Amino acid sequence: MPQPMPPFDPYSAACPSRQALDRIGDRWTILVFGALDDGPQRFTELARRIEGVSQKMLTQTLRGLERDGLVTRTVHATVPPRVDYELTALGRTLSGPIAALEKWAMDHMADVLAAREAYDTRRAQPVA
Amino acid sequence: MPQPMPPFDPYSAACPSRQALDRIGDRWTILVFGALDDGPQRFTELARRIEGVSQKMLTQTLRGLERDGLVTRTVHATVPPRVDYELTALGRTLSGPIAALEKWAMDHMADVLAAREAYDTRRAQPVA
Repeated sequence: MPQPMPPFDPYSAACPSRQALDRIGDRWTILVFGALDDGPQRFTELARRIEGVSQKMLTQTLRGLERDGLVTRTVHATVPPRVDYELTALGRTLSGPIAALEKWAMDHMADVLAAREAYDTRRAQPVA
Repeated sequence: MPQPMPPFDPYSAACPSRQALDRIGDRWTILVFGALDDGPQRFTELARRIEGVSQKMLTQTLRGLERDGLVTRTVHATVPPRVDYELTALGRTLSGPIAALEKWAMDHMADVLAAREAYDTRRAQPVA
């Protein structure tokens, strides 16, 4: 049975919810979640879908997510063995918030790029 | 006028929306957003509220958010000058998704900690 705990406060330096923010916030975590939202995937499928992720980084990301109870890793007794990754019930509670972030990045990236260009232009001008 | 752009795809290695994921995902960004959601704040107020953030890291985070058009920095002509930070209209579009992440971290941190403990215990046991 879970122990009663004090409320989590990520503004407090010692609170473990800060680590949760780091886990969630990671670029590869966001992309793995998006991919697993469509159902279980094999390691090789994930590696193909998430362009540019190294095998080492993908392994680390999946292991971290498994340790945090967000993803399960299932080894099927085939030859060669097939390994599937899937969101857990807890992982699915995080899908919605992560999908919203991903959607935001796609919807507003043009505005962010325009803002960056304007900022860099302002910076490059001599102050009157 | 913004140029027409191809759709953003963070699964593609070259897409700039990946950088947006990195910006969003950063722990300090999430905490700064939560703090600025209550209204404009001075640098010193932010530093006090976000325990454990160094002055350098907070400055870097705020500068990055300013460059991305998510936060404005206003210098008031007082003695000493007062500097306020505030979410822009674009920044406010990101508040909801970020608040959902923060809420998730607070609501589910106990489950994550329990999963970690169970994982580490399984790992520590010899395989039969």
